[in-house]
Amino acid sequence: MRNSSSEFCRNVRLRRGLLAERAEVVREKVIPYQWKALNDDVPGAEPSFAIENLRIAAGEKDGEFRGWVFQDSDVAKWLEAVAYRLMAEPHPEWEARADEVIDLVERAQQADGYLNSYYTITAPQERWTNLRDKHELYCAGHFIEAGVAYYQATGKDKLLQVVCRLADHICEVFGPHANQKRGYPGHEEIELALVKLYRVTQKRAYLELAEFFIEERGRQPHYFTLEALARGEDPREYRFDYAYSQSHLPLREQTTVEGHAVRAMYLLAAAADLALEKDDPELQAVCERLWNNVVQRRMYITGAIGSAGHHEGFTIDYDLPNDLAYAETCAAIGLVFWAQRMLQLAAKAEYADVMERALYNGVLSGMSLEGTKFFYVNPLEVDPRLCAARYELRETLPERQEWFGCACCPPNLARLLASINSYIYSANQTEVFVHLFADSTATIQLGGEQVVLVQQTDYPWDEHVQISIHTPKPALFTLSIRIPGWCTSPVVRLGDERLSLRNVEDGYLRLHSRWSDGDTISLTFPMPVVRVWANPLVADNVGKVALQRGPIVYCFEEVDNGANLAALCIPENAAFVAERDPALQLPALVGPGLRITAPESGLYTTARPVHQAVTLKAVPYFAWSNRGRGEMRIWLNELELGPNLH
Amino acid sequence: MRNSSSEFCRNVRLRRGLLAERAEVVREKVIPYQWKALNDDVPGAEPSFAIENLRIAAGEKDGEFRGWVFQDSDVAKWLEAVAYRLMAEPHPEWEARADEVIDLVERAQQADGYLNSYYTITAPQERWTNLRDKHELYCAGHFIEAGVAYYQATGKDKLLQVVCRLADHICEVFGPHANQKRGYPGHEEIELALVKLYRVTQKRAYLELAEFFIEERGRQPHYFTLEALARGEDPREYRFDYAYSQSHLPLREQTTVEGHAVRAMYLLAAAADLALEKDDPELQAVCERLWNNVVQRRMYITGAIGSAGHHEGFTIDYDLPNDLAYAETCAAIGLVFWAQRMLQLAAKAEYADVMERALYNGVLSGMSLEGTKFFYVNPLEVDPRLCAARYELRETLPERQEWFGCACCPPNLARLLASINSYIYSANQTEVFVHLFADSTATIQLGGEQVVLVQQTDYPWDEHVQISIHTPKPALFTLSIRIPGWCTSPVVRLGDERLSLRNVEDGYLRLHSRWSDGDTISLTFPMPVVRVWANPLVADNVGKVALQRGPIVYCFEEVDNGANLAALCIPENAAFVAERDPALQLPALVGPGLRITAPESGLYTTARPVHQAVTLKAVPYFAWSNRGRGEMRIWLNELELGPNLH
Repeated sequence: MRNSSSEFCRNVRLRRGLLAERAEVVREKVIPYQWKALNDDVPGAEPSFAIENLRIAAGEKDGEFRGWVFQDSDVAKWLEAVAYRLMAEPHPEWEARADEVIDLVERAQQADGYLNSYYTITAPQERWTNLRDKHELYCAGHFIEAGVAYYQATGKDKLLQVVCRLADHICEVFGPHANQKRGYPGHEEIELALVKLYRVTQKRAYLELAEFFIEERGRQPHYFTLEALARGEDPREYRFDYAYSQSHLPLREQTTVEGHAVRAMYLLAAAADLALEKDDPELQAVCERLWNNVVQRRMYITGAIGSAGHHEGFTIDYDLPNDLAYAETCAAIGLVFWAQRMLQLAAKAEYADVMERALYNGVLSGMSLEGTKFFYVNPLEVDPRLCAARYELRETLPERQEWFGCACCPPNLARLLASINSYIYSANQTEVFVHLFADSTATIQLGGEQVVLVQQTDYPWDEHVQISIHTPKPALFTLSIRIPGWCTSPVVRLGDERLSLRNVEDGYLRLHSRWSDGDTISLTFPMPVVRVWANPLVADNVGKVALQRGPIVYCFEEVDNGANLAALCIPENAAFVAERDPALQLPALVGPGLRITAPESGLYTTARPVHQAVTLKAVPYFAWSNRGRGEMRIWLNELELGPNLH
Repeated sequence: MRNSSSEFCRNVRLRRGLLAERAEVVREKVIPYQWKALNDDVPGAEPSFAIENLRIAAGEKDGEFRGWVFQDSDVAKWLEAVAYRLMAEPHPEWEARADEVIDLVERAQQADGYLNSYYTITAPQERWTNLRDKHELYCAGHFIEAGVAYYQATGKDKLLQVVCRLADHICEVFGPHANQKRGYPGHEEIELALVKLYRVTQKRAYLELAEFFIEERGRQPHYFTLEALARGEDPREYRFDYAYSQSHLPLREQTTVEGHAVRAMYLLAAAADLALEKDDPELQAVCERLWNNVVQRRMYITGAIGSAGHHEGFTIDYDLPNDLAYAETCAAIGLVFWAQRMLQLAAKAEYADVMERALYNGVLSGMSLEGTKFFYVNPLEVDPRLCAARYELRETLPERQEWFGCACCPPNLARLLASINSYIYSANQTEVFVHLFADSTATIQLGGEQVVLVQQTDYPWDEHVQISIHTPKPALFTLSIRIPGWCTSPVVRLGDERLSLRNVEDGYLRLHSRWSDGDTISLTFPMPVVRVWANPLVADNVGKVALQRGPIVYCFEEVDNGANLAALCIPENAAFVAERDPALQLPALVGPGLRITAPESGLYTTARPVHQAVTLKAVPYFAWSNRGRGEMRIWLNELELGPNLH
């Protein structure tokens, strides 16, 4: 499973369908839009100052640092997204722009390799004195990811050299030796970046530094405490606890996923990388334990994570309020990153199921269909009047915004979706895994041959997926196809022959064969509209039901169903059918429902509420808020027709 | 309707029953406990500093002011509660203590009448420069209420003289004239206190000052803006808006009740007083409009108000979340104050219904059965694990506390419950209204005779109330008895004769007669367990039901029903019966229910949840959290047996 994702980014081409469209929107709209944003050229949007800061750090302009301390990372994420765009197809104009930015980044780098516009401009003597809060290592991580991707995309190594110098500098400063700092980042990110850099450069020191950061985290005496004392601060005045940055305990001792959700995902993605690189089953078991905690206790139906806005993170098991959800776009993206790495450790469809759930729901919801507006917070239930009236919902915006002063999510979306083709397959020399379904062609070295796999499908909207094999000579390899966890009655045919599904292993149908040119596997994943219930320990969802079709979670919007969605309910026996929505150009679900109405106008009554028959319409959750402002909710009350006694 | 409540406080004696017990607990436990608290003599509780501050202000001790700027008000509320205690029966020991405190208050008063320990100690030259935030007029109001009550209780006028000098000083400082400040308090309270002072002293200036404060409020240019500018502050940096203090508009232009709930209640109670004193139907109509907004749109089933903790107040119509409820004890007390005054304006049982709802539920819940622990926030749904895990629930404590640094609620409870006997009746020379039912004797001047009304009842637990009339000579008057709004089938007998209820007017059965000694009215208010539904515009309660018996709202506790109360539901046809709870010594409700359980252990499933038959037990909401720490909720899901189509 050691093919790098960059190979798949280059060698898998999306042709059409939902993921192709979203990637196209990123290429054509988001990358240019973000370029303007980074250059403070979007009228009405909060300025970024990100390019400006680098110019000042490079000594080419006067001025003060502006924006967040991690503003550099937006530039890095944009460069990474451009790299993935260039992997898909050449584009001299964007390549030239990226080259200019890379030149600027190089000029902003200090002689010793240090690279961070915030400290360079504001307090160069205070470098590395506040790892807890200041995101230096986080920004370094994003530069490293960009350098690796740009090298892989273009073969140009200027940015790679820049980030190697930066990484070398960090290798000197941090580590276990007496003359080194035993610190680690407050916001993880550099760990997974260093693994990428190691894989490209094969320089072992980078992997060892990633390992150091991961293993040192949470040890006593606590580095952030020592560091705060060294700054002359009282560490007890820190507004968060160390669980916020997953440093309350060494990772190997953690049993629940705590704190800031994006940080947790980046740490765990890196931990999975490290377990793979070091072949460390104990660390793999730690990852699996924490994975189970997230997906079985702390994940929304959309694959979103982080149920509290105050610390942008996790609270306790089963605490998944729909309205107070933070569900940051970046956190769902982080879950995709982690899931992909868990798949590398063990090809279990449960990882791909979660990856798909997060991707099609909690991630895609972060971007408008047109690609010009973005959600940072992705609640599962919104009433715009409450967003305006309730202080605790002040960050829950009822409509996507053009840009954010803290703009982590839009460029993160861009880099994920621009490289989404690399998430479809993984392979080694003798086996290829099909994790996701999307109309695409993939060129993969398998069984000694360069094999082309062609997927023809309109997944996730249509149940049919056809995978055909094109090979100049018969090739011996295993084709392992994920049977989606949401699918209860899959049908698989090889040519005309219906295949047994008895040899499905960990959710993958493993077909070992000498494959010939033209061999075709036809998959049918029937997509009825299904009801999903949450575990009754999720207090907010007891008595409620959500609708799902294939991997797509649906939601109800005011524009389709009127105001006060809370009063709608779905009878136990109501049948929903898929119908194309003319405005969204997506399948909607339509079925009979009830609206609970008051028999009188008062606030409390002893008169039983009455039900009014209505037609309910649900649209894909990721596509909500594309038709104006209004209420939305995923979970509706269900009207049962009697107890289901057990 | 001009009998003062102090007469009823003196002349109505509670004999037994719930209100008598609660008043007794206040007399025997709360007043002594608060005395210790004011003197910083409660081990483990946050110190009050309140008496200490007055000593420093009186120049008898050195030291700094400590505690909140409104710390004086705790002393005043305690004095007021002691006054009501002394009205009920002499108690030389507490009277002596109160006299000592009054002496101290007098010594802390400045030569010009000014009285406020915070400014006197910290910045005497800055008096009256920050009405918005500093509670000077609020504290003055509480001193005035105490002075009036203590005079009425004991005939001693030392404190009355102190507060008259204080009020005279305030009359000089504030008003419409060129040499006066056009300000008004940020936290209302003095308005209703000035009306009380006017009624006792008949000094018109006090009524006029109350009127000025009420009418000036919210006019432009805004006083709080001018005042902030005069302090050299930017008024735009104020962390609240002016609706927080009901000064966003002149009162007469307000159509919804906004902002901090206690402040709103105190303002509206004073406005009702003023409408009565000035015979102002327009102002009465304003009160009625705002009353309707609260009770038909913004009140919890418990009579609690204030659905948001951030500003301790109102949000928007129908936004009544059970877990995020602020529902401050003081706000429910304020609603009782206002309701009592609306009853003086118009004898409509809807006011008494709300007064009773708030009293028996949202007010009594503020105090433990033993009277030693208190709730400030009274949520309708609590999970202690969430209180610890969620930032927005940080003030929602799952157990009552011994004392609070900001201790407004316990002394407010004490002064209300110590005078609760005065809320049972109101009267003029020819008519007496029975608003509440409690085993008691009342001596009232009616029809030229001193009539004694004796109520025999175990209300609110028992349906029977017997009112007998004792008069030396037959007396001609109207006996108007409230028929509780919650009661659908009342039966009223005069002697053996069943009375028609056709002449019930605004919820009062008006019996005009020449009453003779021994005449007895027997009331039967059947108390089946009833289900209450909220208006479906209350999103949090759709599909849910609450149980009520008589005026008592019930709740479910973990100690009786196990953890995860959210998964419990009440079938449509389940019958509940009242049974005495041996630990609480109160009627509990017991009936069949269902617990929703997961068919499998995952977080989301397409397998329908199953129901497990359980026995449910509910206890009076006000008595929750008297048997240890655990979950509580009022509203449970209801399992309907099919649509109730309309």
